[in-house]
Amino acid sequence: MASSASPIRVRTHEILTHVGERVILQGWLHNLRRLGGVNFIILRDGWGTVQAVTEDEADLAPLLQEGLGVETVIRLTGTVVATPQAPGGVELHQPELAVITPVQEAPPLALNKRRLRAALPTLLDHAVIANRHPSRRAVFRLAAGLMAGFRAALADRGFTEIQTPKIVASATESGANVFTIDYFGRPAYLAQSPQFYKQIMVGVFERVYEVGPVFRAEPHDTARHINEYVSLDAEFGFIQDHFSVMALLREVLAHMLAHLAEAYAPELALLQLSLPPVPATIPHIHFADAQELIFQRHGVDVRGEPDLSPQDERWLGAWAQAEHGSDFLFVTGYPMAKRPFYTHPDPNRPGYSNSFDLLFRGVELVTGGQRLHRYPDYLAALEGAGLSPEPFATYLEAFRYGMPPHGGFAIGLERLLMQLLDAPNLRLTTLFPRDMTRLAP
Amino acid sequence: MASSASPIRVRTHEILTHVGERVILQGWLHNLRRLGGVNFIILRDGWGTVQAVTEDEADLAPLLQEGLGVETVIRLTGTVVATPQAPGGVELHQPELAVITPVQEAPPLALNKRRLRAALPTLLDHAVIANRHPSRRAVFRLAAGLMAGFRAALADRGFTEIQTPKIVASATESGANVFTIDYFGRPAYLAQSPQFYKQIMVGVFERVYEVGPVFRAEPHDTARHINEYVSLDAEFGFIQDHFSVMALLREVLAHMLAHLAEAYAPELALLQLSLPPVPATIPHIHFADAQELIFQRHGVDVRGEPDLSPQDERWLGAWAQAEHGSDFLFVTGYPMAKRPFYTHPDPNRPGYSNSFDLLFRGVELVTGGQRLHRYPDYLAALEGAGLSPEPFATYLEAFRYGMPPHGGFAIGLERLLMQLLDAPNLRLTTLFPRDMTRLAP
Repeated sequence: MASSASPIRVRTHEILTHVGERVILQGWLHNLRRLGGVNFIILRDGWGTVQAVTEDEADLAPLLQEGLGVETVIRLTGTVVATPQAPGGVELHQPELAVITPVQEAPPLALNKRRLRAALPTLLDHAVIANRHPSRRAVFRLAAGLMAGFRAALADRGFTEIQTPKIVASATESGANVFTIDYFGRPAYLAQSPQFYKQIMVGVFERVYEVGPVFRAEPHDTARHINEYVSLDAEFGFIQDHFSVMALLREVLAHMLAHLAEAYAPELALLQLSLPPVPATIPHIHFADAQELIFQRHGVDVRGEPDLSPQDERWLGAWAQAEHGSDFLFVTGYPMAKRPFYTHPDPNRPGYSNSFDLLFRGVELVTGGQRLHRYPDYLAALEGAGLSPEPFATYLEAFRYGMPPHGGFAIGLERLLMQLLDAPNLRLTTLFPRDMTRLAP
Repeated sequence: MASSASPIRVRTHEILTHVGERVILQGWLHNLRRLGGVNFIILRDGWGTVQAVTEDEADLAPLLQEGLGVETVIRLTGTVVATPQAPGGVELHQPELAVITPVQEAPPLALNKRRLRAALPTLLDHAVIANRHPSRRAVFRLAAGLMAGFRAALADRGFTEIQTPKIVASATESGANVFTIDYFGRPAYLAQSPQFYKQIMVGVFERVYEVGPVFRAEPHDTARHINEYVSLDAEFGFIQDHFSVMALLREVLAHMLAHLAEAYAPELALLQLSLPPVPATIPHIHFADAQELIFQRHGVDVRGEPDLSPQDERWLGAWAQAEHGSDFLFVTGYPMAKRPFYTHPDPNRPGYSNSFDLLFRGVELVTGGQRLHRYPDYLAALEGAGLSPEPFATYLEAFRYGMPPHGGFAIGLERLLMQLLDAPNLRLTTLFPRDMTRLAP
């Protein structure tokens, strides 16, 4: 475009292709630096920042006259000049600045420092503003990238997206830790997971996935708990056993991380984040063998325990790294006693299950497995768990009229992001976290 | 692949590319027809149906010996033969049938008739099974297609996907019709829409969208109400006015319908559905002009009424069809009195707003508009509405620290599907509907 034409609006990440042109940028006044007669106006839009340079104080008049400060919404018209020493390699010359929305009051957090320095409660109280910081935005763009990668991986494999109800009639899945709603005068509950519905939908589409909120009324106030989070769920039929599910999960994770590497390079660079390689085959170890290994390597006898402790998981993570050079490790065959009633047992070792956890650097990342699929097995499992079949009537209808062997997994979006970022608190990976005491913003 | 190799599993929609090969199909026994010595085994998988043909009764033994019926989960190995008179143009010969999961009991609805004949309550009570019917599946695949088309249209235009909290601290947006939750002993509410959060996020990403559940405690038991639905929300900054929003909405709708036409042809054919063309420019009429038009054409004086009645909307839809040949019509400038407090007024006619409804064939389909963006305007609007600013403190923080002119829209996924399908009841367009009396399945 000739520079004599009317300037068009470009976004900051497009500016490199407009060198020599006069363009319009729109965004927030990220910073204003006045250094010995040279003034730098830094504009931030939804994608990045660009600086404009001027020695003429008059160019700043629209800001200075009204005493306006950072976060003022502005329009900046200028000529794009390639400048190797400028951040991003370009800057705007001969800027004309117009105020769109004036801001005089300083924001509660400094958004224009490289690092957002604020105590966690302050950052969360002011998340509405804090999330504007480039480092916070980058985290949430990666969240969007993980969702997109998850969906693309599954759509490519013939999975259909579903949206299942979040208000449910009974607190049946785990029987505890559910939020109660007043539903037109009677109690209802918030769904802890789409588990039952995604299984039912295997009977319809055979392969399904869902990305949506889940609600856990767990009364735990730790760095690793929030009470509403985004679950990436997949479920599919005609599997061999849980190893079919593990193979799919590996492919999906590899796709998600490849998608980030491909489409989110600026965010990864800003966060100085290097993504872990997903091995072509993720190593796996049976639960009983894992306990034996811990005994052999560390002299701690956890054999016979029904579950792994966080210390056990760290030991296993270190072993996977040392023995297989892998950040990832599948632990298979968890004891049936610790798994939900719909878990499929190992036909050869009925005390163990066809389920798995995926550990990432020694921390549980994903849980999944094969589910029961025969109607009589469900009736027996419910009876064994001391549960009446009556509240499960509609769930059981799926199995009564034919279900194939099936299984699936659920990835907690925030949990995955926390582990990729090595973030100290799960609350840092969700836009507006909900915990026992926090309901706002 | 040579037919002497081990057969591989193919899905029904892939079978045409395997003529002459021996393949494995897996799915549900959709039907078994025995006609004068010729037996047709119809298998349904997650994608479609295929028939196998045999004159040898012994081939049916795995079913007949155990008295098994439809919905039995089976594996069918056979040779793919091009057969012009067979449905889909192919059938399987020399079938070998194996039972994966036996079913003896007949399902509560006949899934193998072309039309699913059941009264609505029966269909909804047994949605777990009814949703297996090919015509029901097609509806829900179109739902998936609409979501995918919506996301793709917005991602292409630089929008970032967000997930905002569904549990909120106060029933502020409309002040009524919210579900109350017991949140660790204090009241909280289910989000009626992501309106406040998507506006806040314009301050972060400038362009955002969300696909997620919303909850309306409206005590209306009609064919057009459900209490939980999927909302397709978009919001973006640096707009001129509501016409910028209308232009985006037109592009997004056109993209969504084009995506269905391109990727969902089998479902559209099965449902005998032809999609409406989205005009390059959707006609628009101002609210006041619409009332005048109704008076002129129909002699009914609705001038001065604060809203349009369903009859008014039908008349306007008929006019758009007659005058512009369009199924779609924007009505702009609804009176401020009937719009929420965050609505931006028309600067030239302050009693009217910079908002719009999109009518489709005379029925409201989408609502949207420009929002206020200046902090003092919010304080004045809340005061004018008799609302205290205190419960809105975190929402207002976004405006206090600089927001651009912005606007957006929300499409109800089920409502859109209902109107495209001309379905008699909104409940038919959601997998497991929630209404005043229905919480299961």
